[in-house]
Amino acid sequence: MFTNPAPSRTDDVVEVLTEEQCWNLLDRCELGRLAVVADGAPEIFPVNYVTDGPYVLFRTAPGTKLEKLAESPQVAFEVDEYDDTHAASVILKGVAHRLTVQSEIDAAEELALESWIPTLKYRWVRITATEVSGRRFPRGPEPERYRASRDDRDG
Amino acid sequence: MFTNPAPSRTDDVVEVLTEEQCWNLLDRCELGRLAVVADGAPEIFPVNYVTDGPYVLFRTAPGTKLEKLAESPQVAFEVDEYDDTHAASVILKGVAHRLTVQSEIDAAEELALESWIPTLKYRWVRITATEVSGRRFPRGPEPERYRASRDDRDG
Repeated sequence: MFTNPAPSRTDDVVEVLTEEQCWNLLDRCELGRLAVVADGAPEIFPVNYVTDGPYVLFRTAPGTKLEKLAESPQVAFEVDEYDDTHAASVILKGVAHRLTVQSEIDAAEELALESWIPTLKYRWVRITATEVSGRRFPRGPEPERYRASRDDRDG
Repeated sequence: MFTNPAPSRTDDVVEVLTEEQCWNLLDRCELGRLAVVADGAPEIFPVNYVTDGPYVLFRTAPGTKLEKLAESPQVAFEVDEYDDTHAASVILKGVAHRLTVQSEIDAAEELALESWIPTLKYRWVRITATEVSGRRFPRGPEPERYRASRDDRDG
């Protein structure tokens, strides 16, 4: 659809994370962003979450977020971490469903989920991952070539 | 669809940000997460961005992200910031389009966009906001009532 007018240095500087590295990053973080589709449009929510093996779990109060998941359970979930020198992010695709079996809810309650927002959240939602990918790169300016090749843009 | 089994303390602890406060937070941050719909499924991307009046702008290399925006320009965009005591987030809904008019591209190039990833990104995308909302709250544990009322859950 679009063509790339110049070689990118992406391959040189971006480290593709292994699945294990992705899950390690997911394990370390506490805040992720959940993207869902509602009435054909994207919605995004910040959520505190916890991992449990191949699952990502979070809790929510009744309302919009849960209703959208019931209608359209496919989700994309993002976490990132960065400091002054490096940045990394993980994208997880999966299917979300609300836990309704008491034994599953009881098991979830044992997880170390820390919610930052001091309000009541009754319902557990579990995302089953179908795909996980991540990358890490040193933070830095764009290559000089960018400046030199701006005239090459096809746009 | 779902009923709320107990009053929530949300209204007591969550401060709804004014539109001006939302834009102030957008102005302060550098990293946001862009949610789009592709083939009916949600996709999410971390992006460095810059604001310009009522617009959010970012750059991207040719590829997936842009192609999805061309097919489905509705986006949701999230930023957040937090420290040990408070957390805040802003959700912006809008319509994205790639800048193709040279005068607009030239104006965008003057903006103070800092991209963290040292790779070539040629194309500017501008999000025109249709809706912006935000909230801020003190970080803290859930109320004790949660423990007391778990048996009230409806499912």
